[in-house]
Amino acid sequence: MNKSFLIMSPGPTTVPPEVLMEGARPIIHHRTPEFREYVDECTKGLQYIFQTKYRVFNFVSTGTGAMESAVANLINPGDKAIAVVGGKFGERWSKILKSYKANVVEIKVEWSTVVSPEQIETALKENPDTKVVYITLTDTSAGGVTPVKEIAKVVNKTDALLVVDAVSGLLAEEYKMDEWGVDVTVSSSQKGVMLPPGLAFAAVNDKAFEASKKIDSPKFYFDWKAYDKKFPNDTPYTAGVSLMYQLKKALEMIKEETVEHIWYRHKVLADATRAAVKAIGLELLNDHPNNVATAVISGSMDGQEVVKIMREKYGIIIAGGQEPYKGKIFRLGHLGYVTGKDVITMLGALEMTLKDLGYDLEFGEAVAAALPILREGEIW
Amino acid sequence: MNKSFLIMSPGPTTVPPEVLMEGARPIIHHRTPEFREYVDECTKGLQYIFQTKYRVFNFVSTGTGAMESAVANLINPGDKAIAVVGGKFGERWSKILKSYKANVVEIKVEWSTVVSPEQIETALKENPDTKVVYITLTDTSAGGVTPVKEIAKVVNKTDALLVVDAVSGLLAEEYKMDEWGVDVTVSSSQKGVMLPPGLAFAAVNDKAFEASKKIDSPKFYFDWKAYDKKFPNDTPYTAGVSLMYQLKKALEMIKEETVEHIWYRHKVLADATRAAVKAIGLELLNDHPNNVATAVISGSMDGQEVVKIMREKYGIIIAGGQEPYKGKIFRLGHLGYVTGKDVITMLGALEMTLKDLGYDLEFGEAVAAALPILREGEIW
Repeated sequence: MNKSFLIMSPGPTTVPPEVLMEGARPIIHHRTPEFREYVDECTKGLQYIFQTKYRVFNFVSTGTGAMESAVANLINPGDKAIAVVGGKFGERWSKILKSYKANVVEIKVEWSTVVSPEQIETALKENPDTKVVYITLTDTSAGGVTPVKEIAKVVNKTDALLVVDAVSGLLAEEYKMDEWGVDVTVSSSQKGVMLPPGLAFAAVNDKAFEASKKIDSPKFYFDWKAYDKKFPNDTPYTAGVSLMYQLKKALEMIKEETVEHIWYRHKVLADATRAAVKAIGLELLNDHPNNVATAVISGSMDGQEVVKIMREKYGIIIAGGQEPYKGKIFRLGHLGYVTGKDVITMLGALEMTLKDLGYDLEFGEAVAAALPILREGEIW
Repeated sequence: MNKSFLIMSPGPTTVPPEVLMEGARPIIHHRTPEFREYVDECTKGLQYIFQTKYRVFNFVSTGTGAMESAVANLINPGDKAIAVVGGKFGERWSKILKSYKANVVEIKVEWSTVVSPEQIETALKENPDTKVVYITLTDTSAGGVTPVKEIAKVVNKTDALLVVDAVSGLLAEEYKMDEWGVDVTVSSSQKGVMLPPGLAFAAVNDKAFEASKKIDSPKFYFDWKAYDKKFPNDTPYTAGVSLMYQLKKALEMIKEETVEHIWYRHKVLADATRAAVKAIGLELLNDHPNNVATAVISGSMDGQEVVKIMREKYGIIIAGGQEPYKGKIFRLGHLGYVTGKDVITMLGALEMTLKDLGYDLEFGEAVAAALPILREGEIW
């Protein structure tokens, strides 16, 4: 007997069975009062997880589409924008901005660390005409967590808008959009929200929405104005009906656990994983590690081999490194529908995998470091 | 006891139970060999339903996103494009083109008919610098079917590309992309393909793909080049995993029935519906009616009332009219997972609804006209 793969990646993440089952419900038509009630409920739940009272638009797309919306709706050709490039997803901000012919100021950050509020402050002083600052809450390719709260304080002293890619980080990290003063947050369904891929979200405050009215860049499908007209209980184009059923269910589960406990759970799972990795003599890639996925330097081992053996021999999906760290790291996810049990399963498989690769360890060492943290934290 | 609503709209359409169940399967990670096999199978099935040997790109979006891709990848600012505007979806081509700053030549067509090949020929003669012609296979708002085969002959005498929105018409109407010489066809999942909303497709031949390489319009999420790099068995951004499970299943069902029989089935269902409507003295809006949804002039009755009573009292979802025909028509869908049984159910409900509204008819008149056509056509 083989159980299906255990997904321990930065996303797509495991979908809870009760959410999966919602995906099998008969379709109802999206232009009906019954469906509008669904959309309305989902809007409220999304506002809760983004911690915002403002608009949360809901696209049928992946996170990249929501990211593009935050460029197409805020940037005219030639506008100056700061993009923090400290991993694959920061690079994506820069690429999208260049496609929209923005004047991009890149803050390049080593993948082993994250951008500091001081770096943002300096860049804003050197570029007082900056329209928008684009950052990434957790650039999972590099394993770090960006100090968004402190960066927001810096940006809010200027006229620039702050846009945060929270695609992977939402719910895994403490995040308070309105309280911190973030103008736009984008995320998607297949991460902390525990849904299949297919929906993406853009939370947009009044300041950002007002600014978007002056933007003339080509756009249609991701034009916020069209979504605003239908907000909060309808969509301008066909709604992702099955995914909205699932979203409503997942948001109910999230509300029951509370965002505070979800943030805490992810911290405990990540603490346990980090302690386990260090206990067997491996090092983390990032000095500000996030709670989404632990990026581990594979040293003398090929990180891709670790991923391959974990999947093929032990049925656990973890993630490899992306260029320039391909082969040099592997990433242990603990995002979404994950408990202490899953982390221990993953660590057990990791111990066997490393042994297979000739790495020097005693069986039980990684697990032994994780168990007391999970026990103490009461996450099992 | 109440059965769930019967959807008889131009989309979203009913999803077969065996396809729904696929949506409840556990997620697998999209960057795995197992998932690439899924994508590969889906690509082959999509090529079959588009009747093309070329690329069929697969977006997580609705049909509007795929439409936008056919503008963003083919139009530079100032490029001349012809758009046929004979309904809501032709208007959408024009709106998207204007957002991308195309020089749009609109061929305006009354909603009661469809564009002729001669009109396209004339427009192309008057505008020899036209880069792309945008048409709609079945603009369901107006109820007609465009003679794509004949239009393709006309366009192919020039250097212009032909782009067809087949969002609602694919599988309901005979359609042979390569044989007819269409360069780009777009469609989506929640129509003839019998899936929940969430996936959209762009079939792109070599001529169109080559042309796209010279286009500099802002785009990222819908940039064909990114999808081409991953074609045929992978996706540039996160794949719609659950929807791809469902797509594979639906494509298997389609292959088993064959596209030829599916086209035939839709023709019989539409013939039966049209005969029924005429038998009770009502008229069709369009003189070239399509096999997706029958647009019926509601005469002295409010078309919106017909829709409302059908839904609230009889549990059947049909569609109303869109501006400028709102209230003046109603639309009886027969698209996707529909058999003769469903058409008869719909017609029975329609007879009762019209009676409720005081319309003069004898019970059984509509059904009586449909039954022999279904029986003769062997669609039940």
